[in-house]
Amino acid sequence: MQHLKHCQSLAQTFLIRSKSFKLLKSNVPSVSVWNGCPSHRWQSSGGHGWQEYHNDGVSKLTFALAGLMAGTGAVLAYKLHRGKMMIDDDFRDVADLEWAATSGQLLETETSSLPIYTLEEVAKHCSLDSGVWVTYKGEVFDITEFVALHPGGDKILLAAGGGLEPYWALYAVHQQDHILQILTEYKIGVLNKESYKKQESANPSDPYFAEPTRHPALQINSLKPFNAEPPASILTDSYITPSAVFFKRNHLPVPRVVSETYKLEIEGLPGGAVSLTLSELKSRFPKHTVTATLQCAGNRRSDMNKVKQVKGLNWGIAAIGNATWSGARLRDVLLYYGFGPDVAAKARHVQFEGLDRDVTGTSYGASIPLNKAVSEEGDVLLAYEMNGEELPADHGYPVRVVAPGIVGARNVKWLGRIVVSDEESKSHWQQNDYKGFSPGTDWDTVDFKSAPAIQELPIQSAITHPAEGMSVDCYAGDVTVKGYAWSGGGREVIRVDVSVDGGNTWHVAKLRTSDKEHNPALPPPPGRAWTWKLWEIEIPLPDKAQELQIVCKAVDSSYNVQPDSSAPIWNLRGVLSNAWHRVKVKVSEDHKVN
Amino acid sequence: MQHLKHCQSLAQTFLIRSKSFKLLKSNVPSVSVWNGCPSHRWQSSGGHGWQEYHNDGVSKLTFALAGLMAGTGAVLAYKLHRGKMMIDDDFRDVADLEWAATSGQLLETETSSLPIYTLEEVAKHCSLDSGVWVTYKGEVFDITEFVALHPGGDKILLAAGGGLEPYWALYAVHQQDHILQILTEYKIGVLNKESYKKQESANPSDPYFAEPTRHPALQINSLKPFNAEPPASILTDSYITPSAVFFKRNHLPVPRVVSETYKLEIEGLPGGAVSLTLSELKSRFPKHTVTATLQCAGNRRSDMNKVKQVKGLNWGIAAIGNATWSGARLRDVLLYYGFGPDVAAKARHVQFEGLDRDVTGTSYGASIPLNKAVSEEGDVLLAYEMNGEELPADHGYPVRVVAPGIVGARNVKWLGRIVVSDEESKSHWQQNDYKGFSPGTDWDTVDFKSAPAIQELPIQSAITHPAEGMSVDCYAGDVTVKGYAWSGGGREVIRVDVSVDGGNTWHVAKLRTSDKEHNPALPPPPGRAWTWKLWEIEIPLPDKAQELQIVCKAVDSSYNVQPDSSAPIWNLRGVLSNAWHRVKVKVSEDHKVN
Repeated sequence: MQHLKHCQSLAQTFLIRSKSFKLLKSNVPSVSVWNGCPSHRWQSSGGHGWQEYHNDGVSKLTFALAGLMAGTGAVLAYKLHRGKMMIDDDFRDVADLEWAATSGQLLETETSSLPIYTLEEVAKHCSLDSGVWVTYKGEVFDITEFVALHPGGDKILLAAGGGLEPYWALYAVHQQDHILQILTEYKIGVLNKESYKKQESANPSDPYFAEPTRHPALQINSLKPFNAEPPASILTDSYITPSAVFFKRNHLPVPRVVSETYKLEIEGLPGGAVSLTLSELKSRFPKHTVTATLQCAGNRRSDMNKVKQVKGLNWGIAAIGNATWSGARLRDVLLYYGFGPDVAAKARHVQFEGLDRDVTGTSYGASIPLNKAVSEEGDVLLAYEMNGEELPADHGYPVRVVAPGIVGARNVKWLGRIVVSDEESKSHWQQNDYKGFSPGTDWDTVDFKSAPAIQELPIQSAITHPAEGMSVDCYAGDVTVKGYAWSGGGREVIRVDVSVDGGNTWHVAKLRTSDKEHNPALPPPPGRAWTWKLWEIEIPLPDKAQELQIVCKAVDSSYNVQPDSSAPIWNLRGVLSNAWHRVKVKVSEDHKVN
Repeated sequence: MQHLKHCQSLAQTFLIRSKSFKLLKSNVPSVSVWNGCPSHRWQSSGGHGWQEYHNDGVSKLTFALAGLMAGTGAVLAYKLHRGKMMIDDDFRDVADLEWAATSGQLLETETSSLPIYTLEEVAKHCSLDSGVWVTYKGEVFDITEFVALHPGGDKILLAAGGGLEPYWALYAVHQQDHILQILTEYKIGVLNKESYKKQESANPSDPYFAEPTRHPALQINSLKPFNAEPPASILTDSYITPSAVFFKRNHLPVPRVVSETYKLEIEGLPGGAVSLTLSELKSRFPKHTVTATLQCAGNRRSDMNKVKQVKGLNWGIAAIGNATWSGARLRDVLLYYGFGPDVAAKARHVQFEGLDRDVTGTSYGASIPLNKAVSEEGDVLLAYEMNGEELPADHGYPVRVVAPGIVGARNVKWLGRIVVSDEESKSHWQQNDYKGFSPGTDWDTVDFKSAPAIQELPIQSAITHPAEGMSVDCYAGDVTVKGYAWSGGGREVIRVDVSVDGGNTWHVAKLRTSDKEHNPALPPPPGRAWTWKLWEIEIPLPDKAQELQIVCKAVDSSYNVQPDSSAPIWNLRGVLSNAWHRVKVKVSEDHKVN
């Protein structure tokens, strides 16, 4: 983390902060990333990837500020706020996100009874010694006491003496009523009109303005960063999920990477740091293709929210997808650049850094265990193709990690750097997010160090047809149930049990391993089953049933099973939600039913 | 399988069958195994292993018959019997086993109204063409129609024309009332007294007469073969389970192996079959020590029996133990004898055969996936020591497989042969046993080919203190709960949740990784956590609680969890019983409670 204990007047710091940013960036690879000044024509890819953007004339100077002032992380727990308030740390729905569009909610006029300040006066309160003042929509807040409670740590001091808006632009997490309520408690005055106008005009442009367009079918869980899943009803229509509707899980703005100048840095190997162009990656190493299912740790979080509210995007059952990935094997690349027994004796992890960065220049980051990275059976790719085409922007163009069997969060997109290390990634997402806890652990008692970072995911399954609330025709005789099942760690799904009576009696579903029903995929070698299985079954309607409680549960090759219910696996981040999936449907005598 | 389609009169076949047996044995390694004529002094090991046995004078000829006539397998499903009867195929308890001690239950006198036959007359009915007659305790049965229904296949023809007793001597599975009921349906007459006496005197001795003595604390689930577990109350007293009370799970009589003449055969490698003496195994390869927990697939089967009766030994929660194993690495041995990429390209499994054999000369057998066997991270041992001493007889003296993270059944004891192959072991135990099925699958619908052989086991935990029905003192303020937790596949136990209110609220237990509380073991590398964790927690007694429903559930490093309840994982063999463990205790105002 970068701590700015000293301050500069917001009115005077554009240039200075620009320099700071360059310093902060000094240790990141010199690749071309989106720089806030999109003056190039973005390439088009299948109608759902890159699109044309126009230069809006924002200067590079302003970008430096935008970069500096981006949010502090995907998840900030406000658990400590005065020991009382529990505030959700992630954004929940589009309504929350659109809150940002309404301005001036807190703005009061100069006729207010509160003191009126200038930007210069605010700028003097830019340290713990002088007090920490910030502004938001023309109001002034003394947040000195809050600094120690800020879940993002003292990164909040980056805004000291100036406006919060640039920081909050990247993260809708801050743009929720209850966070504003906290802020309001610290209100001490308002800016004069001139200062407010001056500040407004200086605000950087929206760092998300250059995102790729997305398929309209996607159901959006958050716009900034973009997180969306396909409708469950279409998820299992094909064994290979089309890239356009493959769930998108971004933690930061999509970086724009120019393939010609892209370089992948590799560190921690005997020969010292190396850097590799995209064409070198493609030409120097054999191209391998792996079909692998990726799943977000938060898939099915909505089931946990039904037990008790958790923090995180309210994913349905479709934050999972199955694609064909092609690229160089990570193992091949590491061996080529000197990985051997000497390194293996010391290193334990392979860290990845994305080219997507927050305000401090900190990349999205994650790591996987070394043995997964270098094992021939690990099948970890530095992928540059998805489903036979160049990686789409949302999926990590030009290069991403595909670590089959591992939680999506470690499959780092827009890959900028690989570090072979004796330590896990120090990133927020590896250390203080994406971990599981006991149902009895709350934000007052949680110790993120006590739990391991999620790597392999547990057995999962869900019903994609019929949908909750649908009706089935009682004259049909039976009901067709469809869904998917997958397990992490290369453990093959060996069986899916389905019940229409809430789990009292069970039927074994038929599994499908390809899009060609009569041409199943070859069985994978043990421990290398990276793909989901789609399943389907026709179950006779029980006599006189008026409602069906359809339930599914899967079993993997280690005979792991899903837990019966969500409450006992509830955890404060709502990850690892893999209880039996349950859908209620009505049995109707009306022939014209769904 | 060996099929004997032709028959010989029981009265004439001792010598002939002895020859047949030699033929059957022609493809097994020429090692010295217990031969039914124990004329040597067995070695003593720590008071719980070998002991002195005396030669009872049974001839080698008789032994040959005993070997030939042993049972057909550990588990025989009688599901097809006239499409009506469902009969348990394994033995349940000591009472069942001791049934064999009561003789003449079916014997009728010559004054019976049924026809009376001589042995010679019976001996003529020894094929499907002539009809298949057998005798049991002096009664005569025409089982021609039953041959096709016999779950053990036409091995039953081995007994055609003679007595069943020698076949049933090895397997108490046959010695249950309902099997006798089936037999009774086929009764056609009785033997005359002279024939019966003649037959009785010719019966072979008990092949189990030379078993080692065992620790008196063991709770016996079956005597022949010997299967026993320690009392749950002592299981977690030490992190390393003493060998004497480590659960014993034998499928056949314990073979007596003389270390000086022991040879381990290895096949399927480029140089052809090789054989290796014990001293070569010890001197040629480095000695590795691995601490690993072994668990029987049937551990906690008793919980499934509470849902609905299953087939199999009624194990409690203690068919699991943690020991230190030392020996040569299987990987080292295979590499030494030529394993390399050429073999790896074709082979997929490593098969093991024990020196414990059934009547046909068929060894106990199992296999593990090749990548587990040859991977450096697999840690598979050809172990010759347990807890720092020579392997005890019950645990596979002189050499056994220790495949950490894999179900006990593949950790083949008394190892005689290793075969690197493109196929799984063809043994009964690999193909038609030790597999999991849906709760909806019964013996009429089961297809053993449809499920994979159990290898890695799922996450498991159980409460060893307090025991069911105990009382806790309401004045104590809290209750101390203890237990164990383990997961297969090298997945580390990362958390154990404990509840005293049936699972409504949860507390996180303290985990222990060694016998020295303040000296925990080093964390294992990822994927190589082979050992259990012991756990303990003190939980405040809920106000006014009169009864506690104590529950535990564990989580492994892939965030697999245990299912809530047993019914949805119930399966006809009662394996993989890993639902939350539940114990009810009373809260008493009496200070003198347990």
